[in-house]
Amino acid sequence: MASKLVAPHGGKGLVCALLEGDALAAELEKAKGMKQVEISDRAKGDLIMMGIGGFSPLTGFMTKADWKGVCENFTMADGTFWPVPITLDVDASEGIKAGDEIALVKDGETFATMSVTETFAMSDDDKKWECEKVFMGEGEESVDGNFWKIAPEDHPGVIMVQNQKDTNIAGPVKVLSQGEYPKEYPGVYLTPAETRAMFDERGWANVAALQLRNPMHRSHEFLAKIAVEVCDGVLIHSLIGNLKPGDIPAPVRVKAIDILIENYFVKENVINSGYPLDMRYAGPREGLLHATFRQNYGVNNMLIGRDHAGVGDFYGLFEAQDIFDRIPQTGDDSKDLLCKPMKIDWTFYCSECDGMASLRTCPHDKGSRVILSGTKLRKALSEGAEIVDHFGRDEVLDHLKAYYATLTEKVEVKMQGAASGDDM
Amino acid sequence: MASKLVAPHGGKGLVCALLEGDALAAELEKAKGMKQVEISDRAKGDLIMMGIGGFSPLTGFMTKADWKGVCENFTMADGTFWPVPITLDVDASEGIKAGDEIALVKDGETFATMSVTETFAMSDDDKKWECEKVFMGEGEESVDGNFWKIAPEDHPGVIMVQNQKDTNIAGPVKVLSQGEYPKEYPGVYLTPAETRAMFDERGWANVAALQLRNPMHRSHEFLAKIAVEVCDGVLIHSLIGNLKPGDIPAPVRVKAIDILIENYFVKENVINSGYPLDMRYAGPREGLLHATFRQNYGVNNMLIGRDHAGVGDFYGLFEAQDIFDRIPQTGDDSKDLLCKPMKIDWTFYCSECDGMASLRTCPHDKGSRVILSGTKLRKALSEGAEIVDHFGRDEVLDHLKAYYATLTEKVEVKMQGAASGDDM
Repeated sequence: MASKLVAPHGGKGLVCALLEGDALAAELEKAKGMKQVEISDRAKGDLIMMGIGGFSPLTGFMTKADWKGVCENFTMADGTFWPVPITLDVDASEGIKAGDEIALVKDGETFATMSVTETFAMSDDDKKWECEKVFMGEGEESVDGNFWKIAPEDHPGVIMVQNQKDTNIAGPVKVLSQGEYPKEYPGVYLTPAETRAMFDERGWANVAALQLRNPMHRSHEFLAKIAVEVCDGVLIHSLIGNLKPGDIPAPVRVKAIDILIENYFVKENVINSGYPLDMRYAGPREGLLHATFRQNYGVNNMLIGRDHAGVGDFYGLFEAQDIFDRIPQTGDDSKDLLCKPMKIDWTFYCSECDGMASLRTCPHDKGSRVILSGTKLRKALSEGAEIVDHFGRDEVLDHLKAYYATLTEKVEVKMQGAASGDDM
Repeated sequence: MASKLVAPHGGKGLVCALLEGDALAAELEKAKGMKQVEISDRAKGDLIMMGIGGFSPLTGFMTKADWKGVCENFTMADGTFWPVPITLDVDASEGIKAGDEIALVKDGETFATMSVTETFAMSDDDKKWECEKVFMGEGEESVDGNFWKIAPEDHPGVIMVQNQKDTNIAGPVKVLSQGEYPKEYPGVYLTPAETRAMFDERGWANVAALQLRNPMHRSHEFLAKIAVEVCDGVLIHSLIGNLKPGDIPAPVRVKAIDILIENYFVKENVINSGYPLDMRYAGPREGLLHATFRQNYGVNNMLIGRDHAGVGDFYGLFEAQDIFDRIPQTGDDSKDLLCKPMKIDWTFYCSECDGMASLRTCPHDKGSRVILSGTKLRKALSEGAEIVDHFGRDEVLDHLKAYYATLTEKVEVKMQGAASGDDM
């Protein structure tokens, strides 16, 4: 039966650069003779996504024209929507030039080979321009040397770009590894082809995704359950790439989701999975990236709650919702983002409502509300404090407490900075 | 600013047959000289809907070709979707014929004039055929003389058709009165033009409607609140036409909704209104009719819960949802039903979930669930019994108890027959 799912982004089906079998063995052999270029964690995640079709229709790292169009107007050179630059930085001193075939390696493993088609310098001004375009919140203005109301040097996304090397290299890649993910997350790390097959098997047409990087608490559960009511099913999709120190490791989070589903969901209507990216800390644009790659996984409704992909206090609580109204729409399904936001207001348990509610449904006083946040939860768990009623589910909290008990020293969880995004 | 709302059904804007001012006075004068034809309560409701655009694009009662197409395939002669016959029956002995101008009256009030364009006989076999097409549940088969597993003589919709007179008359109408509704329900009885203006003023594009004919309890509240989360707003839309003896009168129900909104909703996101129809007891097809006329009111999402527009035990609990998947779709927006179902499973309070849930979200035992039904609520209220916790809201129950206390004798509420549809 024909799939009823949304088509992958970009109108070219799933574009997967991953080699397998003999082709993989041959390319790995060839790679040995190539210049070895060490890549970042971020680039490793990007490569794996290119490998498995998660970044369809990208075939490699972006050219200058793509980079410029994406920064300026969310659009690659060929008119296809894309929300954040997917670029690869190297030192000019490495002498890489167009026409080179290079191997991209990390920690001794070869992740890809790349046919370099273009190199372009990234001056400090270029980086600053990228940061302003990509990371700046709505209504913020650039003032020389201090272009946000909050100092950009506190923004981890800005820091990441500013620390990039002085040259970007573009060109298609052949991906040679999915890293540790298949082995470390069997049944949880799923490729877009795999999630699509699962959705098809269940007969789903309208699928929502819940983005998670924190343990799932009742606000997340509530968002997912709203989506279960109005869609065919929900993909609970956790970031299983690298986090910051003090964050709860992915295996612990994934297990917490399993426990929650086991006890509080109808299993047929949810799938617990993970994706191999690091946080980019791109704020509202990261919300768009979440929707873009979710479309490739077969998802056409992206749950966007309060402070989605938040970065400290840099953004308004609903900027990641509003940005969906400002992106270009050409009317051409092969160019546009087809995964739509499912925007949900601030959610909480309310004793007067006698259940979960949101600012759109609950008219009661703050005193009736248990405002839930992942950060507060982590803080309480790390301090061994009592968790207020209705905040989380006992079975899940017990699991998280057990994890914290294994830590040899208390993890300090701060209510500021990049780790505090309460989003998901 | 241009309206963002769904267009009225049928591609011709709001088609309103209501006369006002001088035209109304002149037509009322003309009507005095016409043949006076007494109409049913159902026809009165139909006429008012034709008057205010609620039945757009209908201009009058259906021809034989329309009647046949609607019964057979949900489609009028010109290809426009319509779910149930809107016909007017008279006695052949009245001698009405094509070309006649007649006045349609009820209880001394002239509701319309009609230019008769066609008359067609309705034999007992014709009526039986209509009943089989319109009222029969999915998968039911006609067996001569006993064409349902449940005897059709217990089906109030069937009884209504079988009691119709032997001739249907077709033709356009001029509507001369909205009856008692504007005076008895000020601010609640709203025309499609009025609800559309209210939605536009609030900037709504995606509007859900909740159909109600029973007091609103927590399952209804839950459905409405799911819609509030994912739409711009919800029209709580009560039947304020005639009900059966033992049902709670419309003013009491409307006030109960006001109390609920006041205490448990964010007022900006809901509108409490009523529509001037009687129940047709058309089962799943009545669910389609609810969606069809809601489209005229500016609604593009029709909440369809368990046993929507249920008629005793005649239909499966989700037939009114499933039928939306079986209606014709031409791809022509001027012909098709554009108001889509928002299908919600059986809902209830669950103590394990610690809030409202549905069969799609709650994995717990029946013992954890407070199954809510309007019928049980009416029964408990009528008997002065205690209402179980989490069943309804105290403020609403107090209002309903006060109403029941005014009754001089206990109203027996049966768990069977037409009045028992727990739908809405």
